[in-house]
Amino acid sequence: MNDRIAITYSILGDQAKEIAEAIRVEQSIEFPFDLASERIQQEVVGQIESISAPINNRTQVVISYDQRVVGAELPQLLNVLWGNVSLIPGVRITDLVIPDSLLNTFKGPRFGIAGLRTFFNAPDRPLITTALKPMGSSVSELAQMATTLASAGFDIIKDDHSLANQPWARWRERVEAVAIAVREANAKSGHKTLYAPSLNLPADQIFNAAQEAKSLGAGALLLLPGISGFDAMRAIAHDDSIGLPIQAHPSMLGSMLTSGEQGVAHPIVLGTLMRIAGADISIFPNFSGRFSFTKQECLSITDAAQSQLGNLKSMWVAPAGGMSLDRIPQMREIYGSALALLIGGALSRGSLAENAKAMVEMVEINKKNW
Amino acid sequence: MNDRIAITYSILGDQAKEIAEAIRVEQSIEFPFDLASERIQQEVVGQIESISAPINNRTQVVISYDQRVVGAELPQLLNVLWGNVSLIPGVRITDLVIPDSLLNTFKGPRFGIAGLRTFFNAPDRPLITTALKPMGSSVSELAQMATTLASAGFDIIKDDHSLANQPWARWRERVEAVAIAVREANAKSGHKTLYAPSLNLPADQIFNAAQEAKSLGAGALLLLPGISGFDAMRAIAHDDSIGLPIQAHPSMLGSMLTSGEQGVAHPIVLGTLMRIAGADISIFPNFSGRFSFTKQECLSITDAAQSQLGNLKSMWVAPAGGMSLDRIPQMREIYGSALALLIGGALSRGSLAENAKAMVEMVEINKKNW
Repeated sequence: MNDRIAITYSILGDQAKEIAEAIRVEQSIEFPFDLASERIQQEVVGQIESISAPINNRTQVVISYDQRVVGAELPQLLNVLWGNVSLIPGVRITDLVIPDSLLNTFKGPRFGIAGLRTFFNAPDRPLITTALKPMGSSVSELAQMATTLASAGFDIIKDDHSLANQPWARWRERVEAVAIAVREANAKSGHKTLYAPSLNLPADQIFNAAQEAKSLGAGALLLLPGISGFDAMRAIAHDDSIGLPIQAHPSMLGSMLTSGEQGVAHPIVLGTLMRIAGADISIFPNFSGRFSFTKQECLSITDAAQSQLGNLKSMWVAPAGGMSLDRIPQMREIYGSALALLIGGALSRGSLAENAKAMVEMVEINKKNW
Repeated sequence: MNDRIAITYSILGDQAKEIAEAIRVEQSIEFPFDLASERIQQEVVGQIESISAPINNRTQVVISYDQRVVGAELPQLLNVLWGNVSLIPGVRITDLVIPDSLLNTFKGPRFGIAGLRTFFNAPDRPLITTALKPMGSSVSELAQMATTLASAGFDIIKDDHSLANQPWARWRERVEAVAIAVREANAKSGHKTLYAPSLNLPADQIFNAAQEAKSLGAGALLLLPGISGFDAMRAIAHDDSIGLPIQAHPSMLGSMLTSGEQGVAHPIVLGTLMRIAGADISIFPNFSGRFSFTKQECLSITDAAQSQLGNLKSMWVAPAGGMSLDRIPQMREIYGSALALLIGGALSRGSLAENAKAMVEMVEINKKNW
């Protein structure tokens, strides 16, 4: 089965064998098995590779699929992975193995860890990133904030993921003003700070907006694949005429993750799929932040982001969500240096300029120790 | 709060007030509340409108948001509805009220119930629809199947949602051959059968593919908003140069639905959002089929599809997933006539031509009784 896709399903209850039989049909031909031709039964329907003994009322079943069911397109890979089976309660996907021959048809991260280390001349330190906030601020307030942050030496300043095209700061005006602010700060400081505007925009505008953002001076892009679709991110990441680093935000993806009973495991969604879809940096909630992820879940995402995955480049992780400067030493210890530190609102408590400078200094001073 | 968006959250546990305080900030400014200006605190942050007494360890909290947080764009509406809060365990959205002033900026279904009743000259009967299956069939096999089904007088014949661009039947060849088969059958029979190819295709091809499908002779389109994003469906539905009826499939949306503990209620996802995003027909798993929905959940979707929602047209429901002819009388009783009957694989048990004819006759004979 080396060239087959293998999916491990953790199935609740004592009907695991029957549910697995249903899944292998549902996720492929979606048609009565006995009515399919023998060729289709053997060639197209998934095959049960193994069924574990149940533990805690859950059974691990591995089903493999001929990679032709995917047709080498990411939307159909998602459909095979989690399309109709998402509607069956008590099923959680715990492992996904994609053969290299299929993986390598995707380009994955354009820059990845090595590419951004080179760009930022950061061979041994984490990236230093933050977000422009809060929604409701004017374009000039956000641009002023960007000036302060860029002057401090941040690597990437992204739009808050909540910034779309609201009346307080329309998308085009905001992108233009912030890009100018960052460019001017870079000219003074010599830094290479990149501004990453959010592309949480209508589907029929998102590709043009990526081009427009670039032409306005954006140096990176923020995508929300849970809203735009993973494949919109892939298409933008892989477009050579854009060619900018991509930060990916987990908005709306929580439903797949937070129920331990069902869904798709954290490393698959926020590691493997983000990486296949071209994210250079995968943002997710760090443990002990505002959200619910465990340390183990965060580490599993990191492993999926950075271990071998065909020829795809490895991806930065950005464990975030309510982080502050005092969490940096712990994050260094846990995640190592292929880490995009992302601290947002906490930098605004007191002097933004001083906090921003302190964050950059914490990384610079410790950079030999990452 | 008449012009505000109101979202009802069902929150698990005894910290509902604290979680609600977090949500109203998280889903708007995502920034420490006390650091925001007084204007932003009042204008941009969500406001708690009511908190119920807890029942069964769950508290219903209504939070309203200024509609400017959405900026009149569907991706940001989704982000406000379920973006970061999707990552908080134990929260389920049970109601969504959008003011008409925002609702009416969306066009909703282009045809809706009345439009397709007129097109199919079906003033008082359900629509008769089916799917081309199974994956693994050749283009000519699928076209032959379409000939049989169109000759029987079906209203809409869609691609199975699993058909993307696989080697057994590449997208363009399939669409062209099936469209020809349906056109020729219509020419002989006088029916107005429409073929709805699936647009489960790469994001950078989907808009062109919609145009191409139309030019090849497709009369309707199948969209998978859980994969392509709801807004891709909206954009295609609202494009006057396409102008075809849209069937929407719930692939990958199950994670939002199937856990009663968290997620977003069935009528919001498969009723309200599908309708806002321009679906003319919302396909979902009928109760007692292959999936898990209850009768009550199916009826709640139907209610959201067909009750008043600003100026948006009402939407057909297609309760499906393992249906057979013997379920039709029950479906008639439960759903009434604004129902798109969708029977797929079961029609292939025995003679497809005879089963297809029987299905059409069941509807025609009973059409006064729907």
